[in-house]
Amino acid sequence: MSGRSHEEGLKDLTLLGNQHTQYSFEYAPEVLEAVDNLHSNRDYFVKFNCPEFTSLCPMTHQPDFATMYISYVPDQKLVESKSLKLYLFSFRNHGDFHEDCVNIIMNDLIQLLDPRYIEVWGKFTPRGGLSIDPWCNYGKPGTKYEEMAHFRLMNHDLYPEKIDNR
Amino acid sequence: MSGRSHEEGLKDLTLLGNQHTQYSFEYAPEVLEAVDNLHSNRDYFVKFNCPEFTSLCPMTHQPDFATMYISYVPDQKLVESKSLKLYLFSFRNHGDFHEDCVNIIMNDLIQLLDPRYIEVWGKFTPRGGLSIDPWCNYGKPGTKYEEMAHFRLMNHDLYPEKIDNR
Amino acid sequence: MSGRSHEEGLKDLTLLGNQHTQYSFEYAPEVLEAVDNLHSNRDYFVKFNCPEFTSLCPMTHQPDFATMYISYVPDQKLVESKSLKLYLFSFRNHGDFHEDCVNIIMNDLIQLLDPRYIEVWGKFTPRGGLSIDPWCNYGKPGTKYEEMAHFRLMNHDLYPEKIDNR
Amino acid sequence: MSGRSHEEGLKDLTLLGNQHTQYSFEYAPEVLEAVDNLHSNRDYFVKFNCPEFTSLCPMTHQPDFATMYISYVPDQKLVESKSLKLYLFSFRNHGDFHEDCVNIIMNDLIQLLDPRYIEVWGKFTPRGGLSIDPWCNYGKPGTKYEEMAHFRLMNHDLYPEKIDNR
Amino acid sequence: MSGRSHEEGLKDLTLLGNQHTQYSFEYAPEVLEAVDNLHSNRDYFVKFNCPEFTSLCPMTHQPDFATMYISYVPDQKLVESKSLKLYLFSFRNHGDFHEDCVNIIMNDLIQLLDPRYIEVWGKFTPRGGLSIDPWCNYGKPGTKYEEMAHFRLMNHDLYPEKIDNR
Amino acid sequence: MSGRSHEEGLKDLTLLGNQHTQYSFEYAPEVLEAVDNLHSNRDYFVKFNCPEFTSLCPMTHQPDFATMYISYVPDQKLVESKSLKLYLFSFRNHGDFHEDCVNIIMNDLIQLLDPRYIEVWGKFTPRGGLSIDPWCNYGKPGTKYEEMAHFRLMNHDLYPEKIDNR
Amino acid sequence: MSGRSHEEGLKDLTLLGNQHTQYSFEYAPEVLEAVDNLHSNRDYFVKFNCPEFTSLCPMTHQPDFATMYISYVPDQKLVESKSLKLYLFSFRNHGDFHEDCVNIIMNDLIQLLDPRYIEVWGKFTPRGGLSIDPWCNYGKPGTKYEEMAHFRLMNHDLYPEKIDNR
Amino acid sequence: MSGRSHEEGLKDLTLLGNQHTQYSFEYAPEVLEAVDNLHSNRDYFVKFNCPEFTSLCPMTHQPDFATMYISYVPDQKLVESKSLKLYLFSFRNHGDFHEDCVNIIMNDLIQLLDPRYIEVWGKFTPRGGLSIDPWCNYGKPGTKYEEMAHFRLMNHDLYPEKIDNR
Amino acid sequence: MSGRSHEEGLKDLTLLGNQHTQYSFEYAPEVLEAVDNLHSNRDYFVKFNCPEFTSLCPMTHQPDFATMYISYVPDQKLVESKSLKLYLFSFRNHGDFHEDCVNIIMNDLIQLLDPRYIEVWGKFTPRGGLSIDPWCNYGKPGTKYEEMAHFRLMNHDLYPEKIDNR
Amino acid sequence: MSGRSHEEGLKDLTLLGNQHTQYSFEYAPEVLEAVDNLHSNRDYFVKFNCPEFTSLCPMTHQPDFATMYISYVPDQKLVESKSLKLYLFSFRNHGDFHEDCVNIIMNDLIQLLDPRYIEVWGKFTPRGGLSIDPWCNYGKPGTKYEEMAHFRLMNHDLYPEKIDNR
Ligand SMILES: [Ca+2]
Ligand SMILES: [Ca+2]
Ligand SMILES: [Ca+2]
Ligand SMILES: [Ca+2]
Ligand SMILES: [Ca+2]
Ligand SMILES: [Ca+2]
Ligand SMILES: [Ca+2]
Ligand SMILES: [Ca+2]
Ligand SMILES: [Ca+2]
Ligand SMILES: [Ca+2]
Ligand SMILES: [Ca+2]
Ligand SMILES: [Ca+2]
Ligand SMILES: [Ca+2]
Ligand SMILES: [Ca+2]
Ligand SMILES: [Ca+2]
Ligand SMILES: [Ca+2]
Repeated sequence: MSGRSHEEGLKDLTLLGNQHTQYSFEYAPEVLEAVDNLHSNRDYFVKFNCPEFTSLCPMTHQPDFATMYISYVPDQKLVESKSLKLYLFSFRNHGDFHEDCVNIIMNDLIQLLDPRYIEVWGKFTPRGGLSIDPWCNYGKPGTKYEEMAHFRLMNHDLYPEKIDNR
Repeated sequence: MSGRSHEEGLKDLTLLGNQHTQYSFEYAPEVLEAVDNLHSNRDYFVKFNCPEFTSLCPMTHQPDFATMYISYVPDQKLVESKSLKLYLFSFRNHGDFHEDCVNIIMNDLIQLLDPRYIEVWGKFTPRGGLSIDPWCNYGKPGTKYEEMAHFRLMNHDLYPEKIDNR
Repeated sequence: MSGRSHEEGLKDLTLLGNQHTQYSFEYAPEVLEAVDNLHSNRDYFVKFNCPEFTSLCPMTHQPDFATMYISYVPDQKLVESKSLKLYLFSFRNHGDFHEDCVNIIMNDLIQLLDPRYIEVWGKFTPRGGLSIDPWCNYGKPGTKYEEMAHFRLMNHDLYPEKIDNR
Repeated sequence: MSGRSHEEGLKDLTLLGNQHTQYSFEYAPEVLEAVDNLHSNRDYFVKFNCPEFTSLCPMTHQPDFATMYISYVPDQKLVESKSLKLYLFSFRNHGDFHEDCVNIIMNDLIQLLDPRYIEVWGKFTPRGGLSIDPWCNYGKPGTKYEEMAHFRLMNHDLYPEKIDNR
Repeated sequence: MSGRSHEEGLKDLTLLGNQHTQYSFEYAPEVLEAVDNLHSNRDYFVKFNCPEFTSLCPMTHQPDFATMYISYVPDQKLVESKSLKLYLFSFRNHGDFHEDCVNIIMNDLIQLLDPRYIEVWGKFTPRGGLSIDPWCNYGKPGTKYEEMAHFRLMNHDLYPEKIDNR
Repeated sequence: MSGRSHEEGLKDLTLLGNQHTQYSFEYAPEVLEAVDNLHSNRDYFVKFNCPEFTSLCPMTHQPDFATMYISYVPDQKLVESKSLKLYLFSFRNHGDFHEDCVNIIMNDLIQLLDPRYIEVWGKFTPRGGLSIDPWCNYGKPGTKYEEMAHFRLMNHDLYPEKIDNR
Repeated sequence: MSGRSHEEGLKDLTLLGNQHTQYSFEYAPEVLEAVDNLHSNRDYFVKFNCPEFTSLCPMTHQPDFATMYISYVPDQKLVESKSLKLYLFSFRNHGDFHEDCVNIIMNDLIQLLDPRYIEVWGKFTPRGGLSIDPWCNYGKPGTKYEEMAHFRLMNHDLYPEKIDNR
Repeated sequence: MSGRSHEEGLKDLTLLGNQHTQYSFEYAPEVLEAVDNLHSNRDYFVKFNCPEFTSLCPMTHQPDFATMYISYVPDQKLVESKSLKLYLFSFRNHGDFHEDCVNIIMNDLIQLLDPRYIEVWGKFTPRGGLSIDPWCNYGKPGTKYEEMAHFRLMNHDLYPEKIDNR
Repeated sequence: MSGRSHEEGLKDLTLLGNQHTQYSFEYAPEVLEAVDNLHSNRDYFVKFNCPEFTSLCPMTHQPDFATMYISYVPDQKLVESKSLKLYLFSFRNHGDFHEDCVNIIMNDLIQLLDPRYIEVWGKFTPRGGLSIDPWCNYGKPGTKYEEMAHFRLMNHDLYPEKIDNR
Repeated sequence: MSGRSHEEGLKDLTLLGNQHTQYSFEYAPEVLEAVDNLHSNRDYFVKFNCPEFTSLCPMTHQPDFATMYISYVPDQKLVESKSLKLYLFSFRNHGDFHEDCVNIIMNDLIQLLDPRYIEVWGKFTPRGGLSIDPWCNYGKPGTKYEEMAHFRLMNHDLYPEKIDNR
C-alpha cells in the first residue's frame, strides 16, 4: 500500500492506532496532537464536522449538546483527528457558556497549529425554547488571512437555517 | 467543574437558576439582562433561534406566530439567554405589526448591549394566504460595522426559502 | 356562484364572515359551532392541521407550543373551522399538562359533534431537551368505529418522526 | 409508432389534441370524458396528482387552494386526463366548503366511470392558521371493493404529514 | 394592549378589519393601500411570500399558478397586507405572460410606495415540461439603491433550486 | 475473486460485458434476458428503480417521462439488469397511454420470468398541471401469491407523496 | 388559570419547579417519578422524543450518542417529564451495549408505571461506519396489550430510514 | 380579459396555440422563436427549468438524461416557451458530450435573442457512478454584462449540491 | 462504571478493543463473532445500518456500492458489531450479483446466530441508469416467526423511496 | 446522428466504448485521458460528482468512504469521464489521509489538463464521530484565475451542511 509514510509524520502520533486510549472527561487541551501538512505550498481548507459535542451549563450543571463545525487553512501543521476527538470529549464534564466554548476551542487550536485561518461554529440544542449558535473566526495577524477573517465575518450566516425545535 | 466562574459575570444574574420566575405577557423590555463578554478582543457572532414567538395583531387582536432569528456581534456585553426568553414572552399579549416587532426587538437589544452589529429576522405564519418576513439590521454608527450593515443589507435574502403555506 | 347554500347550514353560523370577533384567551369550549354534514351517507375523514397551538405549563406558567392534528369521521355534524380556531385560541392562557390538553380537546369535540370516530395528536416543542407527543382516539361505543379505534391504537406511530430539537 | 391505436378508444376523444379548447370556470361536470380500459382483466390503480386546484369560499367568496389526489381502480372505463383537467378548472369560480368539494368530485367520477374503487384527498392551504384535508372513498356496493373501502378508511392517514404553515 | 396605535396609520385603512370585502378578479391596481413606515430612519427589508398566485395564459386562457416573492426596502410607506392580497387576487382572470406579470406587479408597487428598493420573483408551475421563473428588481434612480439593484442582479440565483416537476 | 461463477448462469448472457450493444428505440420485448435464481428456496424481493423512462404520447407524439419502479418475487429466473435497461430504452419512440405502459411492462416480465409476484409503478411528470401514477400487480394464479396481490392492492398508496409540480 | 390542579397529582412532584436540582451522571433509576393519569378510562399513547441521550461503551469507555423514542399507553400513572430527563442524564457515565440500554430503560419504566403497553427505540450514531438501532416493546401479560405487542413487533420498521452517516 | 395583446408580439407566434405541432427529434435550432420584450427599459432575469432533457452519448449511442437550467437577461427579445420546448426535444436522437450540449444550447439562444446576459447549466444523471454538470455563461462583449459574466463565473457553485446517486 | 460486565459476554470477544485488527478483503464469514443476548426472555429487534458496503461486479469486476440494512430478532446470541464490520469489509474484493449478496449475508448470520427472525435489504447505486434493491427475510421454521416472515414479505416496500439517480 | 465527431477528439480515446477494461485498485494516475475542449474560446465550468470514492486509512488500513466533487474551468483539454472513473477506482487499496487524497487528485488533474482553474472537495464519512471534509483549489499562476482561486478560498463554505452522522 502506497501513500503517506511514517517518514511523513505518522511516526510521531501517539493516539491513532493505539488501542488503550484513556478518555478524560475534564477539559484537557494537552491531548491535542498535530501532524505535518504535506501541502503547505498551497492554501486549502480542512473542515471537521463534530455532531457529538456535549458540555455542562456553568449555572445549572445540566448537560448541553451541540454540533461543532471546525474549519481551517493549515500552515505547517494539521490537527490529528483522533486527538481532536479526545479533546472534544474532555468538555463532557466541563461547564461553560456556549459563547465561551467556541472561543476556547478556537484558542486551543490556534495555539497548537498556528493556522493561517480558522473558524468554529457551535450549534446548540434549545433550552427554554431558544437555541444559541455562536461563531468565531481568526486570521493570522498582519497577513492577508486577517482580511479574510473580516471578509468572512461580514458575510457570516446571511441565511440562518430553518429551526423549529423538533 | 472548571469554566466560567462567578467572578466572570455569573453573580449578577437574577434569572438563570432562579426557580420562582414571574412571567409577564405584557411588553416588558426591562426584564432583559446582560453578562460580560469575555472575548471582546475579537469580533464574533452569537445567534439566537427563537421559533416560539407569538404576539397579537393590532387591528384584529388575533394571535400571530413567528420564528425570530437574532444575530449580533457583541461589544462588552452578551444578552443572557433566560432574560431574552422572558423578554420575548412579554410580546404574548402585545399588539403590533410584523414590521414593527422586529424593529422594536432590535432597538431594545441595541439599548441593552450597545453591540457592534445586530440583525433581527421575523418569519411569520400566513394570514389570508400571505406571510410576511421583515428583517432589519444595525452597525454602530461611525465604525466599520456601519459599513458591514449596509453590505449585509445589499446581500440580504437573495434566495428566499420555498414557501407553500403547508 | 353555485355550491353550498344558506339552506344547507350556513345561515346558523355566527362567526364565519363576522368581522367583530371577540377572542377569548381563557379556556372556552362554548365557542365551538357545528354545521350540517351533507354527506352523512358515507364515512369520510376530515383533518385539521393546527400548527399554532399554545398553552401554559400548569406548574411553571411558562408558554408551551404544539402542532395539533385533529382528524375525525363525521356523523351528522361538521365542526365549523373558524369556531375551532377560536376554541384553540382559548388555551392561550390556560395551564394543563400536554397529556391533558389532547384529551380535553377530544372530549369537547365528541360533545359537540357526536362523531363516528375522532383522534387528536399534539406534537409539542421540547423542554429540557425532551418533547412529548400525546395521541388519543375514540370510536362511538357499540359500533364498528369502536373497533376501528382499537385498530388504529394498535397501529399508532410505528414510525416516529426524526427529531433533533433543531 | 406502435401502441394504443384509434381502434382502442382514441377516436372518441373530443379534447386531447383539440387546440381550440374552451375553458369553463363554472362547475361543469359534463366536460368529463372516458376512454376504454384495455386491462379490465386485472385490478390496478390509477392516481392523479392535481396540485393546481382552486375554488371559492361559499361564505366570503375568497379563493381557496388545494392539492387534490384522485386514485381509483378502474372497471371498464378510464377518465381521460385532459377532460379531468377541464373539470377541475370548472371549480375556479365555484363556492363550496372543502368537505363538499372532495365529495362532489368523487360523486361525479363515480357517475362517469362506475369504478371498482375510488378515493379523493384534498389538502388545502390554511385560513386563520388552520388547514383542512378532507378524504373520502368508495367501493362498488356488494363487491369486495366495498370491504376494501372500509379497510382503507380504517387505515387512513395514521401518519399526518408535518405542517408548519410555511 | 400597547403597540401601533390608530394615530400611527391604522385609522386610514379601509380593508383590514372590514368584513364585507368585495373581491375583484379583474386586474385592479387601485385596491392597493399603504400605511406609514414608523422606522424610515433605517433601511430594512420586508418580504411577502405569496404561494397562491394564479392568472390566465394570454394565448390559451388556461390557468397559470405561481409563488410570488415580493421583497422591498420601504421609504415612507409600507404596503398593507390585506390590500396586497386583494391586488394579487385581481390577476385571477387576467391574461399575461409570466415575464409581464412580475414586471407589472413591481411597477404598481413602485407607484404606490416609492420604495428605496424592490424585487419580485415569480416561480410558475410547468407547462409542457418547462417552468419559467422571471425575476425583476429596481432601486430608486440616482441613489445608492440603484447600485444595490445592479449588485443584486449580478448575484441573482447563482444556485437554481432543484426542479423535477413533481 | 470468488462469487457467482459461469456455471451459475453467467455464461448465457449476451449483453452484460458486451461492448457493441445495439440500442433499439422501438418497442422490443425480445431483448429481455433472464439468469438463474440461485435462491429459489426462499421468497425474496428484487426491486429495480428506473428514473430514466421515456415514451411518446399516442395522441400528440410528445415525449413523456417517468420513474418506473419494478419489484418482484422471483421463482426460477431473475431478469438480467442490462437487458432490462435495453427493454426500457425501447419505449423511447413508442406511443402509449401511461396506464398502458405499466401494464405492458408487467405483462412482458411475467412472460419472461413467470414470477411468484410482481408489481410495476410508473410516476410520470405532469402535462397540463396533472400527473398520472398508474400501478399494477400480479400474483401467480392459484397460489398464495394471488392473495398477496390482492392484499397489496388493498394497501396500495395510502400515503400519496407530496406533489407540487416543481 | 384553570387546568390540572394540585389535587390532581401536582403536589407530589419533587422535581418540576424545584430549582436546586441535583444531577446524577451514574445510573439512577430511583429519580423516576410518576403523576396520576387523569384519563385512564381510555387507551392513549404518550411519546417522548429524547435526542440528547449519551452513554459510554462498556468495552472502550468511549461516549455513545443516541436519540431515544419512548412511547407508551398509560394505565394509572404517567411518567413526569423532568424526572425522565434526570433518569436519562444518569446514563451519562454508565457503560452498556446499545441493545442493553433500550431494554434497561423499558424495564425501569415498566417497574415505575405498570403501563398497558410500552416501546423504546434507540437510534445510535455510527462507530466504524455501522450504526445500531435496537427496539423493544412490552404488553401487560394476559391482556390484549400482549397481543398488541406482538402485532407491533410483526410490523416493526418495514421502512428503515435512509442512512448515509452524514 | 386584459393583458398582453396581439399587437404586443403574440400575432407572430406560429407555435403557441397551434394544435398540429410537428416534433423533430433531430437537432433543429430553426424551431426557436422569439417575442418582444415589453420591459427592455430594465434588466431582469428569466429562468427556464427543464427537467426533461434527453440526448444520446456520441460514443455508445446510449440515452443521457439531464435537467437544464437556462437563465438570461433579455435585451429586445424573449424566447417563446413552446418553441424552446420543441428545440430541447430536438436533442432526443442527437449525440454529443455533456460539455458540448450546454455550449450549443447557449450559442443557439445567443444567436436568436442577442441577450444581455445568459447562462446554461446541465445536470446529468450518472454513468459508471459519476455524474457531470457543465455550466457556461456569456455577457454581451464590450458591455457591463461581460463583467457580470466573469463575476458569476468567479462565484459559480461554491456549494455543490449533495449527490448520492439515489 | 456499571453496566454489562465481562461475566456477561465481553470476555470472549477477540475484536472489540483489540487494536491490531487485520482486515480481510476476501469473503471471510469466519470473522463473525457473537455475544450473549441478555434479554432473550423477550422478542426485540436490532437493526444495523451499513452505508459503506462495497463489492465487485462478477462480470465486469467493477466496484459496486450499497447501503445494507440488517435487522433481526435475536434468540440466544447477538452479533458483535466490530466483527460484523469486518465481515462486511470482506466483500470488498468479492464478486457477486446484488441479489446474491443479500442472500449470502443473511445465510451467514443465520448460521452464526440462529435468530428468531432476520431480514437484509441492500440498496445499490445505479449502473446504466438502473439501481437494484434486493430484500430477503427468514423466520425460524416451525415457529411463529416463520409466519412473521411471510407477513413481512406481504407488506414489504409498499412505498418505494423516491429515486432520481442524483 | 450528428454531434461531436471522431475528428473532434473521439478517435484517441482508448477507454470509452472499450468493453475489456482492466481495473487497477492500486494508485494509477497514468489511466487518466483527455479529449479536446471544443469551446476553449470561453471560460466555463465542468463538475464531476463522485459519490463512490473509497480508499484506505494509512494507519489502520481500514476502508474510508467519501463523495468527491471535482470542478474545473478547462483550457485546451477536458478529462474523459471513463478514465476519471478508473483513476478514482485506483485509490481503492491505496492508503492516505483525507487531506492528502484531495491534494493528490488535484495535482494529477493539473498535470493532465493544465486547466485554467480547478477545485476538489472530499466529504468523508465519520470515524469516531468526526468527519473530515478537505477542500483545495488552484488557478493558473500569473493569470486572473490565480486571483479567482484566492477569491473562492475567501468565500469557501460559509454555510457548512447539516451533519448528524445518520
Ligand atoms: Ca427542525
Ligand atoms: Ca412548505
Ligand atoms: Ca428545551
Ligand atoms: Ca429536526
Ligand atoms: Ca392563513
Ligand atoms: Ca412546511
Ligand atoms: Ca421537485
Ligand atoms: Ca406540465
Ligand atoms: Ca416537488
Ligand atoms: Ca463511523
Ligand atoms: Ca443521512
Ligand atoms: Ca444526516
Ligand atoms: Ca441523492
Ligand atoms: Ca450509473
Ligand atoms: Ca435523489
Ligand atoms: Ca463514527
